[in-house]
Amino acid sequence: MEEKLTQLKRILGQVNDLNHTNALLEWDQQVYMPEAGEDERGEQIATISELAHTLFVSDETGQLLEDLKGLTAVLEPYSDEASLVRVTAREYEREKRVPAEKVAEFARVTSTAHGAWAKARQNNDFKHFQPHLEKIVELVKEYAGYFAPYEHVYDPLLDRFEPGMKTVDVKAIFADLRPRQVELIKAITSRPQVDDSFLQQPFADQKQWDFGIMVAEKFGITWDRSRQDRTAHPFTTTFGQNDVRITTRVHEDLPTSALFSTMHEAGHALYELGFDPKHRRTPLSDAASLAIHESQSRMWENLVGRSRSFWTHFYPMMKEAFPSQLGNIDMETFYRAINKVEPSLIRVEADEATYNLHVMLRLEIEIALMEGSIQVKDLPEVWNTKMQDYLGLTPPNDSNGVLQDVHWSGGMIGYFPTYALGNLVSAQLWEKMHQDMPTLEDEIRQGIFNTMLEWLRINIHRHGAKYETQELVQKVTGAKIDPQPYLRYLTAKYSDIYAF
Amino acid sequence: MEEKLTQLKRILGQVNDLNHTNALLEWDQQVYMPEAGEDERGEQIATISELAHTLFVSDETGQLLEDLKGLTAVLEPYSDEASLVRVTAREYEREKRVPAEKVAEFARVTSTAHGAWAKARQNNDFKHFQPHLEKIVELVKEYAGYFAPYEHVYDPLLDRFEPGMKTVDVKAIFADLRPRQVELIKAITSRPQVDDSFLQQPFADQKQWDFGIMVAEKFGITWDRSRQDRTAHPFTTTFGQNDVRITTRVHEDLPTSALFSTMHEAGHALYELGFDPKHRRTPLSDAASLAIHESQSRMWENLVGRSRSFWTHFYPMMKEAFPSQLGNIDMETFYRAINKVEPSLIRVEADEATYNLHVMLRLEIEIALMEGSIQVKDLPEVWNTKMQDYLGLTPPNDSNGVLQDVHWSGGMIGYFPTYALGNLVSAQLWEKMHQDMPTLEDEIRQGIFNTMLEWLRINIHRHGAKYETQELVQKVTGAKIDPQPYLRYLTAKYSDIYAF
Repeated sequence: MEEKLTQLKRILGQVNDLNHTNALLEWDQQVYMPEAGEDERGEQIATISELAHTLFVSDETGQLLEDLKGLTAVLEPYSDEASLVRVTAREYEREKRVPAEKVAEFARVTSTAHGAWAKARQNNDFKHFQPHLEKIVELVKEYAGYFAPYEHVYDPLLDRFEPGMKTVDVKAIFADLRPRQVELIKAITSRPQVDDSFLQQPFADQKQWDFGIMVAEKFGITWDRSRQDRTAHPFTTTFGQNDVRITTRVHEDLPTSALFSTMHEAGHALYELGFDPKHRRTPLSDAASLAIHESQSRMWENLVGRSRSFWTHFYPMMKEAFPSQLGNIDMETFYRAINKVEPSLIRVEADEATYNLHVMLRLEIEIALMEGSIQVKDLPEVWNTKMQDYLGLTPPNDSNGVLQDVHWSGGMIGYFPTYALGNLVSAQLWEKMHQDMPTLEDEIRQGIFNTMLEWLRINIHRHGAKYETQELVQKVTGAKIDPQPYLRYLTAKYSDIYAF
Repeated sequence: MEEKLTQLKRILGQVNDLNHTNALLEWDQQVYMPEAGEDERGEQIATISELAHTLFVSDETGQLLEDLKGLTAVLEPYSDEASLVRVTAREYEREKRVPAEKVAEFARVTSTAHGAWAKARQNNDFKHFQPHLEKIVELVKEYAGYFAPYEHVYDPLLDRFEPGMKTVDVKAIFADLRPRQVELIKAITSRPQVDDSFLQQPFADQKQWDFGIMVAEKFGITWDRSRQDRTAHPFTTTFGQNDVRITTRVHEDLPTSALFSTMHEAGHALYELGFDPKHRRTPLSDAASLAIHESQSRMWENLVGRSRSFWTHFYPMMKEAFPSQLGNIDMETFYRAINKVEPSLIRVEADEATYNLHVMLRLEIEIALMEGSIQVKDLPEVWNTKMQDYLGLTPPNDSNGVLQDVHWSGGMIGYFPTYALGNLVSAQLWEKMHQDMPTLEDEIRQGIFNTMLEWLRINIHRHGAKYETQELVQKVTGAKIDPQPYLRYLTAKYSDIYAF
C-alpha cells in the first residue's frame, strides 16, 4: 500500500502544482497583468487546465485508486490514507466524465468571457456579454449532461462547489429560511432608520489600507505566508500551504468596503493557511466545500467584525486613525451605522439581513437557466423583476443589476448558494464556539483572537477536505446545516439595534 | 506538410505556455512572493519544467520533426517553415539528451540555491552557498556529459545561451579584445579623473522612478504590453508576445542605477516585444541568442543612454526633475560624470571601459571549474586574486566579490560571456545603423527614437530565433562578430572625455 500511495501522491503533487500555478496565472491577470496580455493568458490557463486534467484522469491514477480502494477498505474511514483515497476518487470520478478538450475549451471561453463581462459591466452593455454567457450556459449544460442521469440538472453543478449537497436539500433549507428573513426585514424597515451619514465622507485610502492590514494581523495573518494586493473585486487565492494571498479594493467614500473585505478575505485565507501540512499537495489540502469556506470568511467579517465586542477594542484605534471623521461619533453610533439594514442593489455590499435574498434570487435564476425555462437574453428583465419582488428595488442599469457579479463569466454556475449556506454554518459554529469557550466574547473585547483561531484550526481548518460539509457540521456541532442559529443571531442583533 | 506543421505547432504552443508560465512563477518569486512560499515555489517550477521538457522531447515531437525535415528540405532555408523545423530540431536534439528527472532536479536545486545565495550574499557567508553551488556544478558537469564527445567541456554550456558558438571562438575574440581594453583603461587612468561628486547625494526615489518610466516610454515601451516592478536585481521576463515585463531597483544615493537599469531592461523588452507575432508560441518567437539580446539592452543603455546626443534632449528634463541637485551642473559635466571610468568591484555597476574585464574573469573561472582545475571551495580566493590582476582591486568581502551575481545560483554557467559579446555586437550594429540612417544622431538629440526602433525591428527583432548570432550579425553588418567597432567606439568616446 505504501508504494502505491507514494505513486499516487507523486501524480497528485504534480496536479496540485499545476492547479496552484493556474491560480497564480489568474491572480496575476487580476492584479498586475498588462491589458494586452489577456488573450495569451487565456491560452496559458487553458493549457495548464488541460494538462492538469489529463494527468489527473490518467489510467494510471484510475488503476492506483482502484487498487488503493481495496487496500484502504480495512482502515478507519477517516484515517489519512482512507480519506485521501476516498476524496481523490470522488474528484477523479467527477473529472473523468469530462473530456480534456472540454476542460481546455471551458478555460478558454471563460478567460475571454471575463474580459467581455468587465467591459460590459463598465459600459452597462449586457448585449456585449450575452453571447459569451450563452456559450458558457451551453458548456455548463453539456457539463451537467456528462453526469446524467441525475435527480436534478443543477445537482452536478452544485456538486462542484458543495460535494454531496443536492438541489432538493438547498431548496428545502432556503424554503425554511426565506419567509423568516423577509419577516425580519419587514420588522426592521418598519422601525426608524439608523444614522450612517458620517460614513459618507472621504476616508484616506492609505489609512484605510493600514487599518485593514493591522486587523488582519490581529486575526492571525502573517505576511511571511501571505500578502494583500488591490483588485477590482476582492478575492483569496492559494499557491501553496505557505502562500495564500488576499486582495481588496479601497473606496475613499465607503470606508466599510475595504475593511470588511479584508476581514472577509482574511477569514478565507486563515482557513487555507490552517490545512494540516501533512496533506500538502494532495486533494485533502483543500476546503471541505465553499459553504465551509464562506462560513470562515463571514464569521470573521460579520460575527466578529460587525460585533460590539470587536469594536470595543478597535473603535478607539479607528477614531485615532480618522479623528476628523469620527472624533464626535461614539462607538454605539458607529456600531449601528456599520450594521444598517437597507434593501440594496449590490450583493457584495449588502447587509447581513438582506444578503441571503440576493443569493436566493441568483439561485432561482441559475436553476431556471439550467432547466431552460428562461434564456440568457431574458436575464436583465428577469433580474429586475425578481429584485423588485425580493427587495423592492429596480436597478437603474444592468451594471448594478445582472452584470454585477463576476461568477457567471467564470462559468461558476452553482456557486452562489454556497454563500447563503456559509452564513448559516458560520452561526452554527459560532454558537458551538461560545459553548466551548465561555470567555470568547471577553477575548474579542480585548482584541485577542488566538484561542478562537486555535478552535477553528482544530475543529475546521486542519481537516481540509477530509469531511464533506454536512459531515463536518454534524461532527462539530452535533447537527446538520440548520438555519435556526443564523436566524437567532440575526433576530437578536437587529431587535437590539432597531428596538423591535 | 500543413497538417504535420499544425500538429507540431500544437505541441510547441503548449510547451511555450508552460515556459511562459514558469517565467511567471519566477517573476512572482522575485517580485511579490511571501518569504515562506520559497520551497513550494521550487516544487512548482520543477514540475512545470519537467512537464515542458517531457512534452517537448516526446516521441511524437521527434517523429513530426523527422517527417518535417524531409518535407521542408526543398524550401528556402530561411522560409518560416524550414526555419521553424530547423530551430525546433536544434532545441529538440539538445533537450532530448537530458533526462526529464534531471530537468526537474535542476529546477529544484537551483530554486533552493537561489534562496541560499541571497542569504549568503546578505550575510557575507560564502560557506552557506558553497554546498548549493557544489551541487550545481556537479549537475552542470553531468549536463555537459550528455553532450560528449565535445571539443571543449564548456561548449555544451555556452550552446544553451549562444547556439552555435564555440569556446574556442569566444576565447579568440576575448584574446583580441583583452589587451586593447587593458591598454585603454591604462590610458584613461593616467589622466585626471572626472568629477561626479554631485551624483553622491540623495535623489528622491519616486522622481527617479518617474524619470525612468518616461524614458522607457520615449524608447517605445507601452504599458498595455509591459510593466515595471521593483526587485533586488533588475531583469526582463516574457509571458507572451504582449506581456514582457521589466524590473529595476532604485538607490536614492546612486541616481544612475535605476535610470540606466530601466534603459537596459527596456532594450531587452523592446527586442522581445518586436518578435514577429506570426511566430507566436513557437521557438522562433525567442531571442537569436543572449549576445543578441544583450546587444539590444546595452545599445539603449550605453550607445544611446550614455551619449551626448541623448542628454541634449533629456538633460533639461533631468535638471527640472532634480533642480536642487543639478541646478548648477552643466550638461557636459553631467555627461562626463555618468561616463566616469574607474575600476570597481561590482559588474552591474561597472563602466563601459572596464565591464568586459568583469566578464572575462568570470569566463575564466567557469572554464576552470568545468575543467576541474579549481574547486568551488577555492572560489573566493580565486576571485579575489583575479580581481587584483584584472582591476587592481581586492573585494573587502565576498558579498562584493564572488557572491555578487545571481547567475551561478540559477545554474547559468555559460551565460557571462554573452554580456561581452553583446557589447561587441551593439557597436557593430550601431556603426551600421549610422551608415543606414545619417540623421540618427540628430533624431536622438531631439528625443526621437521611432526610426531607430523601426530599424532594429526590421533588421533584428522580428527575426526572433530564425538566425544564429553569427548569421544574423553577418546578414545585417556584412561581417561576423568583430571587436573593432566596439574598440573604436570606446576609444573615440573616452579619448574625448579624458583628453588623451
